Amino acid sequence: MATRLQDAQVAVVGLGLMGGSLAGALRGSCRSVVGVSRREETIAAARVLDLVDWGTTDLRTGIDQADVVVLATPVRVILQQLAELGSMVREDCLVLDLGSTKSEIVAAMAELPPHVQPLGGHPMCGKELSGIEAADRTLYRGRTFILTPLERTAPWALQLGSELAEAAGCHTLILDAERQDSLVASLSHLPYMLACALVATVDATTSTDPAAWEIVAGGYRDTSRVAGSDVTMMLDILVTNRAQVLQAVEVCQNKLADLAALLSNGQEKDLAQALHAIRDRRREMYL
Amino acid sequence: MATRLQDAQVAVVGLGLMGGSLAGALRGSCRSVVGVSRREETIAAARVLDLVDWGTTDLRTGIDQADVVVLATPVRVILQQLAELGSMVREDCLVLDLGSTKSEIVAAMAELPPHVQPLGGHPMCGKELSGIEAADRTLYRGRTFILTPLERTAPWALQLGSELAEAAGCHTLILDAERQDSLVASLSHLPYMLACALVATVDATTSTDPAAWEIVAGGYRDTSRVAGSDVTMMLDILVTNRAQVLQAVEVCQNKLADLAALLSNGQEKDLAQALHAIRDRRREMYL
Repeated sequence: MATRLQDAQVAVVGLGLMGGSLAGALRGSCRSVVGVSRREETIAAARVLDLVDWGTTDLRTGIDQADVVVLATPVRVILQQLAELGSMVREDCLVLDLGSTKSEIVAAMAELPPHVQPLGGHPMCGKELSGIEAADRTLYRGRTFILTPLERTAPWALQLGSELAEAAGCHTLILDAERQDSLVASLSHLPYMLACALVATVDATTSTDPAAWEIVAGGYRDTSRVAGSDVTMMLDILVTNRAQVLQAVEVCQNKLADLAALLSNGQEKDLAQALHAIRDRRREMYL
Repeated sequence: MATRLQDAQVAVVGLGLMGGSLAGALRGSCRSVVGVSRREETIAAARVLDLVDWGTTDLRTGIDQADVVVLATPVRVILQQLAELGSMVREDCLVLDLGSTKSEIVAAMAELPPHVQPLGGHPMCGKELSGIEAADRTLYRGRTFILTPLERTAPWALQLGSELAEAAGCHTLILDAERQDSLVASLSHLPYMLACALVATVDATTSTDPAAWEIVAGGYRDTSRVAGSDVTMMLDILVTNRAQVLQAVEVCQNKLADLAALLSNGQEKDLAQALHAIRDRRREMYL
């Protein structure tokens, strides 16, 4: 049992953008980093990029000596892995995940055998690229790493999870799983839905006009960026946070309809007031 | 009369982000750059930043010797200025504007006295900051500068306008005013409406939770960026492109509702297919 990160063997399961970047960021802060991936080529790439000490395509081999197991797969793969890894890990192994939605994962973690220390995690970083070739050791730097401990999570396990997040360059934020899911529905999943709706609209309205390709500017590029995210990852997120996402979409549909109605009705003064309040709110958050 | 930019005195009316940046970018490519602003302090700032040769708060003084007048004010101010500047400018003066919507401006340009050469313009650049202090000589570089000539615009005047756009670093695209307004409704004004609706939603759903401030990540930042745009400018744009903007918003509301319905009904296969098509479309446009 390792209670300090520097003594721990960390197994990262799933070597995509998030897992690969975390593995690389942890090199040197822990005893060793093991990579687990379904594909041999991914293990080979992780070795070439020097992101892991060694790797394997066999989950049991990868995690059976690990002090910390980090599940860095899509949310529903995490749920499957949680159902099967309980018998594979050693006493007091910390099982942490990187899934973007936490309620279902924390519920599945509650079913792990008692010798395991579970801890939900959600680092607030990413980019619209995916795969080990997009891995970047600096991806986590300066970001918030949300931790959602269970009642059964021991203080030392929470501490070890925090140490890992900080070693990757994050600051930690401890939240209840339901509350985190509600927050990210508005702050992360809704932006994805809006970006997708925008791309679909532009595709439907301007795609036959070659001039569209010449005049797409920064506004469209930025507003649509997250629509390029990995679909498998996003689909799992949407499905495991369905009610909260649909709620956020509904609020946003109403806000959009309100703004459109002010424009449609020529209520300029009210529209200006609303847009000013929104602009101030945006600037307050970022400038 | 100057038909080559290097011989022309260019008067830029309105020294905000767009006008100030263009003035600075044109220094050296034309005989002289004159800045016109309502406020003395703006003229003083433009001089300190070396964006103009000289400046004045008096429109007539600023434009009466100009070979090219560039109107870089909000769209409805441009409409007012077009109504009054006809008698102030010299024979064969090229009057170009930078307004984001073109149908109403081109209609107003058609009413100019016959000794004036009108040309609609819309450079596809900007940022969420405004004012002379945000001016940047490189803002126009590599961007598309849409030109919407009128039937009465002489070939030499269109050529001179193109030369000016290219001197600022742009490539030009000649479009019909109605077509440009329809394209930018989807590609530029809709992203603004969506960004505003997103900020309003986040404000309504998460603003009372201090954790929200710690977990806002790149997705929200980028998707909401243009909500920080100058409200006076955006309001004029929306009002002078009302029908096309409302049409784009309606299509987008339907696209968003379609995606939400697939999620709500558990039609995962269809949702995955839609999200894949959208992701491919986004990547096709930008990667």
